[in-house]
Formats: sequence, structure tokens, C-alpha cells
Amino acid sequence: MTREVMVVENVLRVNDELARLLREKLTGRRIFTVNLIGAPGCGKTALLEKTLEMLAGEMKLAVMVGDLTTARDAQRMSQWCPQVVQINTGKSCHLEANHVLQALEKIDLGNVDLLFIENVGNLICPVGFDLGQDVKVGMFSVAEGDDKPAKHPYIVAEASALILNKVDLLPYVPFRKEVFDQDIRRLNNHAPVLELSVTSGAGLDAWLDWLRDGLRKKRA
Amino acid sequence: MTREVMVVENVLRVNDELARLLREKLTGRRIFTVNLIGAPGCGKTALLEKTLEMLAGEMKLAVMVGDLTTARDAQRMSQWCPQVVQINTGKSCHLEANHVLQALEKIDLGNVDLLFIENVGNLICPVGFDLGQDVKVGMFSVAEGDDKPAKHPYIVAEASALILNKVDLLPYVPFRKEVFDQDIRRLNNHAPVLELSVTSGAGLDAWLDWLRDGLRKKRA
Repeated sequence: MTREVMVVENVLRVNDELARLLREKLTGRRIFTVNLIGAPGCGKTALLEKTLEMLAGEMKLAVMVGDLTTARDAQRMSQWCPQVVQINTGKSCHLEANHVLQALEKIDLGNVDLLFIENVGNLICPVGFDLGQDVKVGMFSVAEGDDKPAKHPYIVAEASALILNKVDLLPYVPFRKEVFDQDIRRLNNHAPVLELSVTSGAGLDAWLDWLRDGLRKKRA
Repeated sequence: MTREVMVVENVLRVNDELARLLREKLTGRRIFTVNLIGAPGCGKTALLEKTLEMLAGEMKLAVMVGDLTTARDAQRMSQWCPQVVQINTGKSCHLEANHVLQALEKIDLGNVDLLFIENVGNLICPVGFDLGQDVKVGMFSVAEGDDKPAKHPYIVAEASALILNKVDLLPYVPFRKEVFDQDIRRLNNHAPVLELSVTSGAGLDAWLDWLRDGLRKKRA
């Protein structure tokens, strides 16, 4: 085994250990935690803005959001939610458990039912890093094309739900829904595929119900 | 310095050494080499398909294309170009000089004027890895939103040209062109910003002229 491989394995082992601590902490407080993973521009922040707005009166929400730089996403979401933490990763292409542990210090956990972790925009690197979440959600948009699940099998295989956003653009872009669906089912036959448009509002109810259900099971 | 940082630096040092060899080899044959970097679904493969089609009678072309898995992109492009090599990176989120060196063995370099390297769909990790290219081209699409340059400063700063694809979708998506442009100019005040739509064909001529100009300079 090369030294490089050994170090990568070591990084993952340390991450897994911190993720275990995180999971204990979050589960101890019965906080339902969602790790949202998708490419840049698939609509992660827009979806969370809308989700925070629609669920604010119903449950207590918190968000942490990873980006290389800027606080733009946290600024956008903070108008809908008092507990939003921006994590700037510098050159790192994904969040690690260590980032989440540090960001948790800025959140009043006694006031959280549902925690969103919006990962750095990237369909590849975030998948391998456990953040202590209950579920990973993989997000695509129709503007990206129908071949993205086949080309990114790890996020599809590990996701508890998959989102297809921007269905309002279907009339304007080439997208074969049957190819998208078939590729997903080959890799993951249990996760629901939630088709929606943050812009038009279509399909958002099913997404909110899926979150309510996750929180209910966590509390059961 | 931690052992992890040391190993990352070592990987980059080895990569830089291989990239130097690559650059010597490609420059010795005066092949103009373009490293195309953009998020999943920004339209890299579609742009190259169209580019191959439009330049095929004029110059000798070759492509290598990186994806975690599948040969779909190479299949799409091979109808327009006899020299297309698919590189499957497994779980690796970017191409390295080592991948390119291996793929070069499958290309008849005596029959190439212009070599495209379509990197793995990712706005972050590919930026740090020199592939012996003449130029890096950073690619965005209007569907991704106007905030992507500010959130991905490294590709913007290092690019010799920046592409904004899918301008045909401007009537259907929220996108502030002035925010996009200002953020780019803050990071890079020399690279042209080429606005185009692979679907409608708008703006492709300027892109082809930019490539012709690059090849001409390489040959001068």
C-alpha cells in the first residue's frame, strides 16, 4: 500500500470517528439531520430557502452551509431562519465531520428539530465523508442533463432520497426522463425520486412530507 | 506540517513533474492543448461535440474525456472525431497528468493540431492539477446561477477564457448578468467571457475564433 493510500485511509478513519461522535450528539437530542449533496447550481440553497420559509412555523430549523468562500448562501437563508452557519472550506471540495463539529458550537441545539447540512457544490468528493447525518439527499437538476446519475453512481447509491429540480425547464432543455429514472433504479431501488421546481413550487409538498416523515421516525 | 499536508504536496510535486514532461511533448509537436473545466451539466461534452463538428474539415482534432465511470461522453464525441479517448477515474474527482500521459499512448500525435482535455465535472478539484495544457478554460451555464464565479474563485483566476453557456435559457431562469461579470472581473481582468448557447448556436463563432487564434499563436 502506498503512503498516499495510507494517509487517505487515515483521514477517513479520523473522519468516521468524529462522525460517530456527531451522530451520538445529534441523535441524543433527536435532531433529524439531512446532508444535502449536489452539483454547483442544482438549486440546493434555493430549495433550502423555500423549505425554511414553508416549515418555519411548524418545526425548529437550523442550517450549516459549506462553500469554498463567500457568505452569500448563509445570507440568503438567514432571512428565513435564525440559526444559519456558513462554513468556508478554503480550497477543500467537501465538508468533513470536523467542520460540522466546529459549526455546531454556533448552534443552540436545544432549539433544533431538523438540521440541514448543505454540502459544498460537488457531486463526487462529499459522498465519502460521513457527517453524522441521518440521511444523505442527492440533488440533480434537469438543466444538467439526464446522464448525471449514471456518471455519479456513488451519490445515487448512498442517497435516501433523490431530488430532480428545475422541472419547469423541461420544455426548454433536452432531457429523457426514462434514461434518468432507469439509471437511478439500476443503482438504488429504494430511494424516492422527488421531482420538483423550487421556482414554480411544483412538487415541494412531497419533499416537505418526506422531511416530516423523517423527523417523525427520528422521534418515534 | 502534518503528514497529510506533506503527502498532498508530494502528490502535487509528482503531478507537476509529469505535467512538465507532457508540456514538452505536446509543445514539441506544436499541439494546442485546452483543459476544459466546469461543473456537471454545464455543457462541456455538448460544446465539444459541436466544436468537433464545426472544426473537423479545418484542423486535426483529438479529445480525452474524464468521468468517474461510463464511456457515454466518448461515444457521443467519437461520431465527430476519430481520436477520442475515455478516461475513467473510478472515485477520483479530477484528472491528473498521469491519466493524460497514459491516454496519450492511444492518440496518434502526428495527426493532432488541437487537443481537448475534458476534465471530470467539478469546479474545484481539477483546478490545482496541471495537465501540461496551454490553457485552462472555465465553463459555467446560466442555469447554475450568477453567483458561481464568486463561489469558485480558483478556476476563474486561472482561466485563459471563461464560457457562459445556455444563454438561450436566460428568459426562464433568474440570472443577473452584471453580478456574474463583476465577480469575474474582480478575479480575472484579462480572460474573455464567451457567452454562447450550444443548443441555439449563438456565440459559437467567437469560441471557434478564440481556438483558431490559440492554435495560430502556438504555431507562430
